[in-house]
Amino acid sequence: MNIAELQSRLRAFAAERQWEPYQTPKNLAMAMVVEAAELVEIFQWLTPEESQAIAQDPAKHQHLGEEIADVLLYLLQIADHSGVDVAAAVEAKLAKNALKYPAKG
Amino acid sequence: MNIAELQSRLRAFAAERQWEPYQTPKNLAMAMVVEAAELVEIFQWLTPEESQAIAQDPAKHQHLGEEIADVLLYLLQIADHSGVDVAAAVEAKLAKNALKYPAKG
Amino acid sequence: MNIAELQSRLRAFAAERQWEPYQTPKNLAMAMVVEAAELVEIFQWLTPEESQAIAQDPAKHQHLGEEIADVLLYLLQIADHSGVDVAAAVEAKLAKNALKYPAKG
Amino acid sequence: MNIAELQSRLRAFAAERQWEPYQTPKNLAMAMVVEAAELVEIFQWLTPEESQAIAQDPAKHQHLGEEIADVLLYLLQIADHSGVDVAAAVEAKLAKNALKYPAKG
Repeated sequence: MNIAELQSRLRAFAAERQWEPYQTPKNLAMAMVVEAAELVEIFQWLTPEESQAIAQDPAKHQHLGEEIADVLLYLLQIADHSGVDVAAAVEAKLAKNALKYPAKG
Repeated sequence: MNIAELQSRLRAFAAERQWEPYQTPKNLAMAMVVEAAELVEIFQWLTPEESQAIAQDPAKHQHLGEEIADVLLYLLQIADHSGVDVAAAVEAKLAKNALKYPAKG
Repeated sequence: MNIAELQSRLRAFAAERQWEPYQTPKNLAMAMVVEAAELVEIFQWLTPEESQAIAQDPAKHQHLGEEIADVLLYLLQIADHSGVDVAAAVEAKLAKNALKYPAKG
Repeated sequence: MNIAELQSRLRAFAAERQWEPYQTPKNLAMAMVVEAAELVEIFQWLTPEESQAIAQDPAKHQHLGEEIADVLLYLLQIADHSGVDVAAAVEAKLAKNALKYPAKG
């Protein structure tokens, strides 16, 4: 996935719709958590086992893909409008997690 | 960003810590929305203008990168454990959005 | 507002619909955050000033009332199913906040 | 629980700390969903059964009470700053739910 290219497409998409005034990091963060909760909604009444079998329900599986995409696209826009390098942030977080949670062994 | 490679690293990381029993899509969705809200928390008392200037505050900017990474990493794990192709889901959602929100002009 | 009476009505409502197996605190917490995000959605693209004038838009004001009720009703159910005394928890939290944030003066 | 009295105390608390400029419904909604997610966090890695036994863990039970209070207090402030009558909104929502989900029988 080419993040910079996706961010560029999202910027063009917003510009063509005159959405720029709305796209503050604050507003994008709100939109992102709304989509995150829509993803949670898919699983809210499912047992753990049912949640693991979501791929067997084509409608829910399709819906899940849409919500994953929605959250991801807002994340990329927050990063773009805040000057965050997503790939670098991911590597830094993985390194931090490795220190925070030492492997058992 | 190589999504499959990241998902593979996250699987190995979880396996080394014996976290697999906890990594149901239901639980991962809960963890994801918790991180999404931690990202929202950064912006909650800021004006729209202050949110646009977040890069000028190094501590908050660093924190924002960490929360973006946290949400993204859980998203990738939800997709991995649910059989969702993230890149395909993103393209499908962009196509759907283009139909839903016609450009003005 | 009589909390115990509301909780009793919510228990009866769930029982009449055979919802009890779904009403674990874990699931109710998920449902609660979904409703919380629906409340956020009302405000996501509004300026701070527009959010302060929400009462002037009858449809949005009505919607806001519904989302406040939805979050509150799930909160009361979480408390009921977890043995939390809401009124006591509120007083304890107010006392804790008064210590945490001393008044300026 | 006396809602109007609680709202009055919360207004005085905010005024004494000069928090009024921050207390727009938009910002309060963000703060509310952050607290809602902190409540979710308590349950994220628990099994459904463990979530039902939360009262047996005094530290978690105490924490749950605090998060319930936090969400509730922000809800009451959103309502107060938006002109929503909480008790009326709750009754209207219960009536609407009774129509939306007919009892089986």
